[in-house]
Amino acid sequence: MVNTRAEAFAPATVANLGAGFDILGLAVEEPGDVVRAERRAEPGAVIVHIEGDNGRLPYEAGKNTACVAAGETLRLLGVRTGVTLTIYKHLPLASGLGSSAASAVAAAVAVNALYGAPLTYAELLPACVAGEAAVSGYHADNVAPCLFGGITLVTGTAADQIYALPVPPGIVLALVTPDITVPTAEARAVLPASVGLRQMVAQTAAVARLVDALHRQDIAALAAAMEGDVVVEAARAHLIPCLAEARAAAKQAGALGVVISGAGPTLCAVCDGEPAARAAGEAMQAVYKQAGINSAARQTHIAAAGARVLQVL
Amino acid sequence: MVNTRAEAFAPATVANLGAGFDILGLAVEEPGDVVRAERRAEPGAVIVHIEGDNGRLPYEAGKNTACVAAGETLRLLGVRTGVTLTIYKHLPLASGLGSSAASAVAAAVAVNALYGAPLTYAELLPACVAGEAAVSGYHADNVAPCLFGGITLVTGTAADQIYALPVPPGIVLALVTPDITVPTAEARAVLPASVGLRQMVAQTAAVARLVDALHRQDIAALAAAMEGDVVVEAARAHLIPCLAEARAAAKQAGALGVVISGAGPTLCAVCDGEPAARAAGEAMQAVYKQAGINSAARQTHIAAAGARVLQVL
Repeated sequence: MVNTRAEAFAPATVANLGAGFDILGLAVEEPGDVVRAERRAEPGAVIVHIEGDNGRLPYEAGKNTACVAAGETLRLLGVRTGVTLTIYKHLPLASGLGSSAASAVAAAVAVNALYGAPLTYAELLPACVAGEAAVSGYHADNVAPCLFGGITLVTGTAADQIYALPVPPGIVLALVTPDITVPTAEARAVLPASVGLRQMVAQTAAVARLVDALHRQDIAALAAAMEGDVVVEAARAHLIPCLAEARAAAKQAGALGVVISGAGPTLCAVCDGEPAARAAGEAMQAVYKQAGINSAARQTHIAAAGARVLQVL
Repeated sequence: MVNTRAEAFAPATVANLGAGFDILGLAVEEPGDVVRAERRAEPGAVIVHIEGDNGRLPYEAGKNTACVAAGETLRLLGVRTGVTLTIYKHLPLASGLGSSAASAVAAAVAVNALYGAPLTYAELLPACVAGEAAVSGYHADNVAPCLFGGITLVTGTAADQIYALPVPPGIVLALVTPDITVPTAEARAVLPASVGLRQMVAQTAAVARLVDALHRQDIAALAAAMEGDVVVEAARAHLIPCLAEARAAAKQAGALGVVISGAGPTLCAVCDGEPAARAAGEAMQAVYKQAGINSAARQTHIAAAGARVLQVL
């Protein structure tokens, strides 16, 4: 309880997994955001420094996901002192990789660690959701896998509405982020208000196959089921240039399936090994290069654990 | 190849399982229909006798599900001779227990057995679907579990679109069929043409929980997920008198969840043992009796195997 500084890491997350719109997500091993919390005498959370965002993130308390999450964590801890936060932003913003969730989760975990970690991750969840809500609405589809790790089924924002699903061994993901902007609000706005009953049946069938494939550790079936989304990708595809070409190229290179990560524009290729993931990433990058669009490629694994404390001093 | 007579049994099925509308179904151990096929020189299938239907089923070839399935099976077998059929109807008609599917499947399996069973069950599937289609449309959500047994995920009418899901041990079902009529066509007509996006998300979440619960052998979670349907029951509840009261009574008696079987009016209570299933069945019957409605109650298990040949002479 005499700590003066704590740092925590929280990973990038891939939400939706295609057919699992708003209910499924997974944590990756890297990249992730790091937040350092330092104790100060005054109550509340303030940001003193942000690195890696090219000046794009707000310092203003109520508008910064990490600051809101830290403030909520202080409230849950019931302490009168406060924290200063330093955010090391390693995730690209508005890329579909759960950037706002990662900063919120890292902040909550760091602040909790600073005060001796009396709260469980389940108890920290509301603070993380409040942080996420500051920028992109009350939902836990990125926050839950970011905090708890693995693959999560999210049926609400409470801890007892979040279920851990099995992670099949051997999955490698190729994440390719083209250098274009898809604001989450716009990606939400293009979604249909309603879907036909037949579409709903097809979507539930794809989700059933997806969960079954996870349990059976069948990566090919998983990838096919993820691509079984008949609602969301159809509405968003026009926001993601070269989606069809990138998917075809990735599959040609050995990927088993490609979906939009979160609200995009990052594409997530599901592969059954590192060589295929490397080749798929390069193939997708080549498509974007051909189209005159820069992109970043990452190969990563699904992380069994989510956020973690890096150091407490 | 010199058989003159073959009999087959095909079980009742519970389609939908609540949240799994049009995609999930299961076979029960009993009751089931029996069809006897006897060789005749003339091509095609004709019905010579139907028992147990109180005279309600048509003998006319194109309108009888068993006769259509038998005719299609003869076509698949490529034989020039034909069959006469006797149908022993043990399933109540239009009760939501897959009556038409059971007769179709039993007929197809009997005819195949009569000719030495050269066709696999997967090869018989189209004949069974064609039989079902004669009365209630081209779908396999009853036919598939009836033919293959167990719990099936049906994403289309082809054999490679049907997936076996694990059957958790220890489940006992209480099936209560009130003596009212819910024609399948009417039960279809009341369904909404479209559903809100939030409803779709809730429905996919329930299906994800349901499949996860099957794999984890968690009967309580399974029953809760089945009841997570937010689309179909809401539309059909008014067709099933006393649904809320029967559900409450069954749960009070120990059932873990209650859903409409298929298009109803049979109610299916999910229980974790025979005493609870017996009590739940009695409790639901008491509700109907109180309302002046006769009902039949059955306790049964999920059948690992589906249709089977009873005898070949």
